[in-house]
Amino acid sequence: PPFTNQHYSFLLNSLNMANQNYKQVFSFFLLISLLLSDNVSSVQKPLDLKKPCKNFVLYHHNIAYDTDNAANATSSTVVNPLGLGTFDFGKIVIFNNPVTTDENFLSEPVARAQGFFFYNQKTTYNTWVACTLVFNSTQHKGTFTIMDANPMTQPTRDLSIIGGTGDFIMTRGVCTFSTDLIQGQKYFRLKMDIKLYECYN
Amino acid sequence: PPFTNQHYSFLLNSLNMANQNYKQVFSFFLLISLLLSDNVSSVQKPLDLKKPCKNFVLYHHNIAYDTDNAANATSSTVVNPLGLGTFDFGKIVIFNNPVTTDENFLSEPVARAQGFFFYNQKTTYNTWVACTLVFNSTQHKGTFTIMDANPMTQPTRDLSIIGGTGDFIMTRGVCTFSTDLIQGQKYFRLKMDIKLYECYN
Amino acid sequence: PPFTNQHYSFLLNSLNMANQNYKQVFSFFLLISLLLSDNVSSVQKPLDLKKPCKNFVLYHHNIAYDTDNAANATSSTVVNPLGLGTFDFGKIVIFNNPVTTDENFLSEPVARAQGFFFYNQKTTYNTWVACTLVFNSTQHKGTFTIMDANPMTQPTRDLSIIGGTGDFIMTRGVCTFSTDLIQGQKYFRLKMDIKLYECYN
Repeated sequence: PPFTNQHYSFLLNSLNMANQNYKQVFSFFLLISLLLSDNVSSVQKPLDLKKPCKNFVLYHHNIAYDTDNAANATSSTVVNPLGLGTFDFGKIVIFNNPVTTDENFLSEPVARAQGFFFYNQKTTYNTWVACTLVFNSTQHKGTFTIMDANPMTQPTRDLSIIGGTGDFIMTRGVCTFSTDLIQGQKYFRLKMDIKLYECYN
Repeated sequence: PPFTNQHYSFLLNSLNMANQNYKQVFSFFLLISLLLSDNVSSVQKPLDLKKPCKNFVLYHHNIAYDTDNAANATSSTVVNPLGLGTFDFGKIVIFNNPVTTDENFLSEPVARAQGFFFYNQKTTYNTWVACTLVFNSTQHKGTFTIMDANPMTQPTRDLSIIGGTGDFIMTRGVCTFSTDLIQGQKYFRLKMDIKLYECYN
Repeated sequence: PPFTNQHYSFLLNSLNMANQNYKQVFSFFLLISLLLSDNVSSVQKPLDLKKPCKNFVLYHHNIAYDTDNAANATSSTVVNPLGLGTFDFGKIVIFNNPVTTDENFLSEPVARAQGFFFYNQKTTYNTWVACTLVFNSTQHKGTFTIMDANPMTQPTRDLSIIGGTGDFIMTRGVCTFSTDLIQGQKYFRLKMDIKLYECYN
């Protein structure tokens, strides 16, 4: 159980009363101890979204395979859409995309984004994505994984960060995607605003 | 480090001794401070399963695409079973299913369940599922993601809730699935009993 | 907010001053209470990697389906590689593999590993994996899920454990994979060194 304001108040009161009535203080603390000996029920606390323990922006570049660009392609459709609607329902894409600190996809990558996404809506373009950022530089070694619905037609969307390893061991948080640039079927760039709220390293 | 009963006892004892021996108290606290300055080793505490911070029941409706029902279908097989056994091993289904607060699939959806599942057993029907509930109503905005094995032949099965965004930011918990109704290959309804044990909003 | 050394110091100082100046103590505590009444900003603490709350080693056996071994096969390719490079980019495998406590794949399984992986690199063998360990023995009932990039050519690699149910409810941690044995395309064995840092059961 976390140490709350109520506990502080108890201590405060106890200190004030210390010279007055030791026995009363004793029984108060005994009561608290008994109450606290229960199981943990659950964690319920508001999170200050403005104060992540780590916050940084990265750019994610996807170059789709079109059978002619094997040298440059970083992602490919592996299951074709099935014709349920006209928004690619059922299409699955696997990727291993470079991740950079600026918008230039020729910049030295600081990570690779490895994962897949698929289209799952009949009435608009909408994807579900699972993606691990793999860092292997002098600055960062480790991974963390993003997974969530990705309603691409919205200007920004929040996706869950659910775990990590190495420098990002056990991390959790939120990644805000915004589609920075789309060039037809060939290339898109995502801005990823990464906010970690649990940092253990 | 969490504030435990032991710490309370120390404080309690310290208060009792306060007028007797300040130096002893001082060294006790110094000892505690030194002990607590270590790294966090790990979290080990029992969870009272009867006290989630949020608990609600939703119904998940899956209408399978059969090539004739494009208007109504909400899910579709995208990879066919490969013939390893007779329980659909290898079949992959992508869905975007309505989620309602009661059993009627015509009720106004409160969320969409977006994700996929696949069959992975030779000897019985058994799936593995990943699924994000996307809430976009006046009551709730946000997402959380369920992921786990789903042994469909058992009357109830627990699946992990691993993260979320918006109203469900960083949430974790357990979702108990029970198959409410199956109508051949065309329709099934899942009851989802959602218990969140970490709530930050 | 966790109870830190700073809080201890405050209390310590307060106790020391208790008989000297009650009003000063009072205002100090009032200040602390006000500071602590803010929202939780984030969790930032180092994790002692040597002290998991649970640590055990399991072996994961994968027998690939080759159309002739339906009786023994525990995994199968469900989407074939697409020819982008020569390292199986795009190949998806679904598995339901036995997990044992020793290296012998004929030992009584203590769990099944259910999930999928896919190849996602043009220049070497590299996979991304999602996998739930399903325990159903007298010793353990429950599940936990592993998910991460799996750079198979490295001797060891850390993967995130992101959640669980039953005996492993809400668990988190890291699983270190090492490829123990490969027999061509037919069989491989993974050693899984499982370290849980959040245990609620």
